[in-house]
Amino acid sequence: MFGVTILGNNSAIPAHGRHPTAQIITTGDDLLLFDCGEGTQIQILNYKIRRSRINHIFISHLHGDHYFGLIGLLSSFALLSRIQPLHVYGPAPLKRLLDQQFHLSETHITFPFHFHAIEQDGLLLDAPHYTVSCFSTKHRIECRGFVVRQKKRKRKILRNLIEQKNIALDQYALLQDGQDITLEDGTVIPNESLTIAATRPKSYAFTADTLFDPAIIPHVKGVDLLYHEATYPHALVDKAAERYHSTTKEAAEIARQAEVNKLLIGHFSAKFDNITLFEEEAKEVFPNTEAAMEGVTYIV
Amino acid sequence: MFGVTILGNNSAIPAHGRHPTAQIITTGDDLLLFDCGEGTQIQILNYKIRRSRINHIFISHLHGDHYFGLIGLLSSFALLSRIQPLHVYGPAPLKRLLDQQFHLSETHITFPFHFHAIEQDGLLLDAPHYTVSCFSTKHRIECRGFVVRQKKRKRKILRNLIEQKNIALDQYALLQDGQDITLEDGTVIPNESLTIAATRPKSYAFTADTLFDPAIIPHVKGVDLLYHEATYPHALVDKAAERYHSTTKEAAEIARQAEVNKLLIGHFSAKFDNITLFEEEAKEVFPNTEAAMEGVTYIV
Repeated sequence: MFGVTILGNNSAIPAHGRHPTAQIITTGDDLLLFDCGEGTQIQILNYKIRRSRINHIFISHLHGDHYFGLIGLLSSFALLSRIQPLHVYGPAPLKRLLDQQFHLSETHITFPFHFHAIEQDGLLLDAPHYTVSCFSTKHRIECRGFVVRQKKRKRKILRNLIEQKNIALDQYALLQDGQDITLEDGTVIPNESLTIAATRPKSYAFTADTLFDPAIIPHVKGVDLLYHEATYPHALVDKAAERYHSTTKEAAEIARQAEVNKLLIGHFSAKFDNITLFEEEAKEVFPNTEAAMEGVTYIV
Repeated sequence: MFGVTILGNNSAIPAHGRHPTAQIITTGDDLLLFDCGEGTQIQILNYKIRRSRINHIFISHLHGDHYFGLIGLLSSFALLSRIQPLHVYGPAPLKRLLDQQFHLSETHITFPFHFHAIEQDGLLLDAPHYTVSCFSTKHRIECRGFVVRQKKRKRKILRNLIEQKNIALDQYALLQDGQDITLEDGTVIPNESLTIAATRPKSYAFTADTLFDPAIIPHVKGVDLLYHEATYPHALVDKAAERYHSTTKEAAEIARQAEVNKLLIGHFSAKFDNITLFEEEAKEVFPNTEAAMEGVTYIV
């Protein structure tokens, strides 16, 4: 499964039952956490996310609605006597803040804790089945979005067929790589007759907070699912620019130009209780848009 | 009204729908906030507390479950363009932490912000109708409890009677202070015939986190309502001591010896979903005990 579970879809101030930014990306057995607004650990409980499977946390920037919940989550991991390693990727000053708070509360981290200061765009994590990389967005303070890309999988061997043909075990790897097989008698068996292609690798991008910025497009080009912030309806385009945020139609315009498959919008302004308008406006520019709802898992 | 609204009654880790420590003390028109665990600003919304009326926040100690929600609440005050002054009382290092986080997020505080480092026991706030003072508890790190005491109110004048007797306006203050009135003809009118006593001033004490510690008793002696932590059932008395917490019966023993009117227990261990046992055990020692429930306002 490759999916995104929204834990918070609101902008700066919690309101209308909506929470600040946090999302869980499920890719195979791994859970990644993108941003960690206040209350994230409570949302993790509410939606029965297996917190012990979160091994990598990515923080886009140091506005509070994107990271105030991190210290609480890490403290709880310590109190729960977590043992497996945890990796946190974020702006360098975050490490000092966390250290100070651990020190003041005399919290002893029970698990190997690796902090990776994000200092440039590019690859952050190279896992066996996927990568996570980051790109800069245009926000009031330094901010980065993240892209998760599944790796290309090997071809799947059709076991019943190769057993019939008496193919040696040591040739399985060649088959998985797409090569043809030559039998001892010289017969060549085409790869396609023994294997099928793996499913196409998919990709998810999260823009964090940003002005409307076409420089984002190459980083999210063709992704299967794009989460782009849409803090304001398009009538407030000037306010959005002034506050380094995007509108519904601006988010949709990025999705359209980047030729993504589907757009999720979120980070809704606390001024708006009803967000129907947000989805309607974005759909005018990019029809395959959904307004991100808390507790919902969107399949990539 | 003088009451305490529980926003969080759980110990270190949020669990079972229970939140970390925070409580609103309503005294007349003022709202005080005692501790501010993660998610407090969300609980304030859930229970429709008028956040703009919170002018004084008291932080007992720097374990995260007592203060991780403070930076979020203050940031929201700034985003909401609060203008009235705010006073925060807490351990000195808290100020540096808050300043760093404001700096990193480029948050501009829009209101006069006064931080009062708690460096010794005693009076913290002398308001027109009440005082707030603090006392040390025995916890793993420096920690203080708080006591709110209403001031003695002036006697209430029975207006219809003094109008009949033609008493001059400038004598009202004397009446309120309990003095008798001498008319021009020399007649003395006893104060009790023109006024009634104001209601008795009441008091509320909050012990924050603490070992069983009889040294607390003089500070909370005779209060109308005592909130004492009871992290564990009494069977776990050794674990409580090891972790610098109290059990149900220890909390009740403090209430009994301090001769308070009523005991509220809280700060329940996350290990326990059902807390019926907590209340039952405490009642064996001090019958007028209630287990503090989130969202409930307890009248002092």
